[in-house]
Amino acid sequence: MKKILVIGASGVIGSAVVHQLQQRHEVIQVGKSSGQYQADITDIAGVRALLQKVGKIDGIVLTAGKLHFGPLQEMTPELFAVGLQDKLMGQVNVVLAAQDYLNDGGSFTLTSGIVGNESILYGANATTVNAAIEGFARAAAIELKRGLRINVVNPSVLQESLEAYGPYFYGFEAVPAQKVALAYSRSVEGAQTGQVYKVW
Amino acid sequence: MKKILVIGASGVIGSAVVHQLQQRHEVIQVGKSSGQYQADITDIAGVRALLQKVGKIDGIVLTAGKLHFGPLQEMTPELFAVGLQDKLMGQVNVVLAAQDYLNDGGSFTLTSGIVGNESILYGANATTVNAAIEGFARAAAIELKRGLRINVVNPSVLQESLEAYGPYFYGFEAVPAQKVALAYSRSVEGAQTGQVYKVW
Repeated sequence: MKKILVIGASGVIGSAVVHQLQQRHEVIQVGKSSGQYQADITDIAGVRALLQKVGKIDGIVLTAGKLHFGPLQEMTPELFAVGLQDKLMGQVNVVLAAQDYLNDGGSFTLTSGIVGNESILYGANATTVNAAIEGFARAAAIELKRGLRINVVNPSVLQESLEAYGPYFYGFEAVPAQKVALAYSRSVEGAQTGQVYKVW
Repeated sequence: MKKILVIGASGVIGSAVVHQLQQRHEVIQVGKSSGQYQADITDIAGVRALLQKVGKIDGIVLTAGKLHFGPLQEMTPELFAVGLQDKLMGQVNVVLAAQDYLNDGGSFTLTSGIVGNESILYGANATTVNAAIEGFARAAAIELKRGLRINVVNPSVLQESLEAYGPYFYGFEAVPAQKVALAYSRSVEGAQTGQVYKVW
């Protein structure tokens, strides 16, 4: 039985991950404004405050992060920063700050997304950020100490989100959050590191 | 004969690109503090001021951009921002601002690097940023209008930089800047878009 922190626990993926992992583990749910603990991970001070309250853990799952969707012709550095500061740096902040809070062999599981590989209209920020997250994990994997591990789950569009995002994703095969949650389990409960688990 | 802007023209790669392209084209050299024009591209206002001075062009080559190299254990969000704000957003800013200054069929040629694919110690910021740049180009390629193109050159470590960076790159085959410059020529003078030209 491990102690696993799920950040973004109230989201569609996050709640499926909680459901999957709490069958076998102690799961601590973190949200921006919900869950057992609240934290704004886009600020590393918020991450540090969270970790001090939670103490030592065996794994962190990150399913939080905003992106900007919009046409390249109307993109500004400020709009582009949405994904960089939120989805990318939110997850990077947690890895940077939490290295000392994970027990030996503990794991980070980050979230990217299919748009990192398959470009879509209005997706320049999303492709950039998702590719960056996978790059970060690939690099961090060879530097983490004490057997700490890091992987990324790269889901396709979710069946549960098709109503909201469907028009961006015609021709993509949607996956249920329940299936995506298995990839997080594989990362947390397996032994691999530096992997990207594509769920598509 | 095209009119090509080379930003980062005084660098090792930049000067090789200038040498290669000015055999057949009008090349305008831009640097932070050298060249025909000076511009700080990490601020989009600096990019806009440059473009207003230069006017319509047929291509922009970007060979400028700083990264942070250092151990993951000592990385901070501020150090991580070096690569995001400089090498990534410097290049993104130029693409965002210059779409209206390129003639039909004009090209952007960005620069990533082998560390985006091959992780090295101290390279987390570099891998992240280089992967992000390639993601951005892949996504921007399908949104650019009027036949505008965007590609990325991904060089290995340069023979000319081995003295400075060699210890990071044991086991990597270094390439001469002259060979790397050919990949920029292929992007500027060819017709492809959304490509990554690996020079390794």
